[in-house]
Amino acid sequence: MAETQEIRPQDDLQEHLLKVLHLLEKQRLVEQLVHKQAMPRHDLVESLVHKQHLAELQKFLDELHPADVAYILEALPLEDRLQVWNLVKAERDGEILLEVSDAVRESLIRAMDSQELVAAAEQLDTDEIADLAPDLPEEVVADVFKRLSAEEREELRAALSYPEGTVGALMDFEMVTIREDVTLEVVLRYLRLLDELPDHTDTLFVVDRQGRLRGILPLNKILVTDPETEVGQVMETEVVSFNPEDRGQEAAQAFERYDLITAPVVDANGKVIGRLTVDAMVDFIREKSESEVLGLAGLKEQEDIFAPIWESLKNRWTWLAVNLITAFIASRVIGVFEESIEKLVALAALMPIIAGIGGNSGNQTITMIVRALALGQINAANAKKLFAKEIGVSVLNGLVWGGVVGLFAFFIYHNVSLGLVMTGAMVLNLLLAALAGVVIPLTMHKLGRDPAVGSSVMITALTDSGGFFIFLGLATVFLL
Amino acid sequence: MAETQEIRPQDDLQEHLLKVLHLLEKQRLVEQLVHKQAMPRHDLVESLVHKQHLAELQKFLDELHPADVAYILEALPLEDRLQVWNLVKAERDGEILLEVSDAVRESLIRAMDSQELVAAAEQLDTDEIADLAPDLPEEVVADVFKRLSAEEREELRAALSYPEGTVGALMDFEMVTIREDVTLEVVLRYLRLLDELPDHTDTLFVVDRQGRLRGILPLNKILVTDPETEVGQVMETEVVSFNPEDRGQEAAQAFERYDLITAPVVDANGKVIGRLTVDAMVDFIREKSESEVLGLAGLKEQEDIFAPIWESLKNRWTWLAVNLITAFIASRVIGVFEESIEKLVALAALMPIIAGIGGNSGNQTITMIVRALALGQINAANAKKLFAKEIGVSVLNGLVWGGVVGLFAFFIYHNVSLGLVMTGAMVLNLLLAALAGVVIPLTMHKLGRDPAVGSSVMITALTDSGGFFIFLGLATVFLL
Repeated sequence: MAETQEIRPQDDLQEHLLKVLHLLEKQRLVEQLVHKQAMPRHDLVESLVHKQHLAELQKFLDELHPADVAYILEALPLEDRLQVWNLVKAERDGEILLEVSDAVRESLIRAMDSQELVAAAEQLDTDEIADLAPDLPEEVVADVFKRLSAEEREELRAALSYPEGTVGALMDFEMVTIREDVTLEVVLRYLRLLDELPDHTDTLFVVDRQGRLRGILPLNKILVTDPETEVGQVMETEVVSFNPEDRGQEAAQAFERYDLITAPVVDANGKVIGRLTVDAMVDFIREKSESEVLGLAGLKEQEDIFAPIWESLKNRWTWLAVNLITAFIASRVIGVFEESIEKLVALAALMPIIAGIGGNSGNQTITMIVRALALGQINAANAKKLFAKEIGVSVLNGLVWGGVVGLFAFFIYHNVSLGLVMTGAMVLNLLLAALAGVVIPLTMHKLGRDPAVGSSVMITALTDSGGFFIFLGLATVFLL
Repeated sequence: MAETQEIRPQDDLQEHLLKVLHLLEKQRLVEQLVHKQAMPRHDLVESLVHKQHLAELQKFLDELHPADVAYILEALPLEDRLQVWNLVKAERDGEILLEVSDAVRESLIRAMDSQELVAAAEQLDTDEIADLAPDLPEEVVADVFKRLSAEEREELRAALSYPEGTVGALMDFEMVTIREDVTLEVVLRYLRLLDELPDHTDTLFVVDRQGRLRGILPLNKILVTDPETEVGQVMETEVVSFNPEDRGQEAAQAFERYDLITAPVVDANGKVIGRLTVDAMVDFIREKSESEVLGLAGLKEQEDIFAPIWESLKNRWTWLAVNLITAFIASRVIGVFEESIEKLVALAALMPIIAGIGGNSGNQTITMIVRALALGQINAANAKKLFAKEIGVSVLNGLVWGGVVGLFAFFIYHNVSLGLVMTGAMVLNLLLAALAGVVIPLTMHKLGRDPAVGSSVMITALTDSGGFFIFLGLATVFLL
């Protein structure tokens, strides 16, 4: 009997990576040896030794889960990565391409010819081909399409027709449907005819003659119920289902809220056309949060850490350019007050404090509001309350922190009026931050745009330029 | 036969909330009426009408999923929230408390007396009680503990003994274990004896006499295999399992990587002591990403949007205080160069550009590195390559954007040297940003600290003060 083989996820991964690096290193040494000696008669022996390491590496890779191979590919510099990629069995190419990050996928696809790509795609389910399609050359997609059955073509067409981020783009087509007027005994016999159930099948979908959803039958229920019972008697009729046009974000929230494993996707007529599975939702949630964090730092996508410098630059430039423009504007605001600064140079040293804390406070407010909007917690009835609260927070913050910076200014420059202007400017800039922190995301939400994208730049730009203007303006009026 | 009731997650939620608000509003009108008229003889009638709305609301709440009640509670101002909370059936209190956010949970618990809290906790599984325990008064926990069976006490003690964020704190104790030397027929009979299987059971854990893990048997496999087969013949022996001390983060990544639904947790002797389920992992991933985004904006936790101002201030002050200190330092750096600024006031207008872009670029680098660290992609072998790449990116960025800001300075102030100093300062500050962006997270990682926490403040502080110093320093040396 086989001994239980425990898989200890994180340790294993690091070990796998080290082993691959080790084998690559060994092989490199052999190659250097062959190169240095350049003795023709040794060729055969060397090539055998050489191949030995490659063979060992290949065997090792064959035993790894596709996701683990993907992990190794992502952690290797480009040259090593392509060498390892060549050792991966062709029939596993497709599933591994699905697992790697977008940037690494591009680097692998670039190294494959059309034939290899077609072969890789052919190993996949139609919903997976659809996931890969945007990264594949058009002729490859066309070629794959030609080789599919009529039914599969229909599925692929459907999957490709839904915009990214919708339920339609996230669903798959593998599911088991049954009728409600049969007994569990019959269902059990039917299931035994199948070699295996689709991954993650936790419920069977009960449909009528037209394929319309009638309910769901959890596998658990089949196992604990008398086989003579009819499906209709034990199936659940309160079903969380989705339309293909629904937003993936909402589906993910529903999976989280109702602890779902799979859920049917139905069209406008109630016909079951696919299903969502929790693993797709987990990936979706991770990618969403990933791109949210990356977006906050102005990165368009997760970088291949070994990408050429040029690729990195492309990933980062948009954001830097936008910020440069807002910095120029802030600079010109200061420029307007150059005379004041010449008269009282302390202003130059103090002004970044007002702008900086305004930006921090505004980002706190905006993050709060964006979260609450994403959770659907804000509506017309409570928006006013929220607004009042943020104003209250900012006024208190302004008085407290404004007081602190006022004292700071007073102790450094021994100027009471300067301290008071600092305090006043802080209160006003924090008020501006609170106003904008509520209004910007609510407005973007109303306009149907994602309030998480770009609102942080906007508020920082506003509190920078606004902060400089308020502080230097107050100083010019009251101090000079 | 029951009609299928479709649940359309997001729309439903909004509707539910509106319905609750509507009923609360109606009730409020009635109360005002009673109050205004103050006619004793009408009391009875009014009170009946009054109660009618409450009864309707209560009935409505009873039919909602606990997670949906939690959603409504979170979206209601404190007064309404407590009114609704009072209408919730006592036996549902526990599961709803588990679903609401930390801040809202505190507000609900504050409104309950010890007896109610004990009753609520008693409805829960031991692993759920453990989740709730930190928020409960000590005497309530002690009281609950006393009422548990010996076995449950052991479970609760175990669950409470593992630090937050470890597998031990995330696992539950509901699982079905079987022996490998019985047939599937026997397993099926055994399952039928159970009323229902624990939630999310997708596999049974196969153990030996000592309770040590031998393998797992997916339910799917039971359904498609001949019942005469022995468990040992069809069970899977390559099992992803966890130790209770493992980090939840690693478990979550493994669930994502291997598309798991449940996984056994084993102690040092290989004995199965609990299990992880995908729904706990989904919650964990969401909370992690939530707190990451909140942390980036300097919020300690998700705020109850209707919390009193004072609670909000506590949530935000640490971050503002830290930023104020770094702003003071930057201000003093500028202070050192006040003479230079007096001589050439353009410096004051231009210096925020250098500091700002440096901060943006540094945050891009640090975000990249923190991601790669979290995914375990960085090791001694490739750290150098990564370093070289970031330096390359920053030099190129410095030349390009430095050139742009140099031109900007030249066009505004018609001073070639000033433009050149801008360009030079930009290159140097971006270099500083790249260096710090790699070194800060790697150092924190080496010291065993979470590089995601605080590294953004540190780099911004460095590129602010550093940027001012570099720019004003260069200007003082070369321009004055």
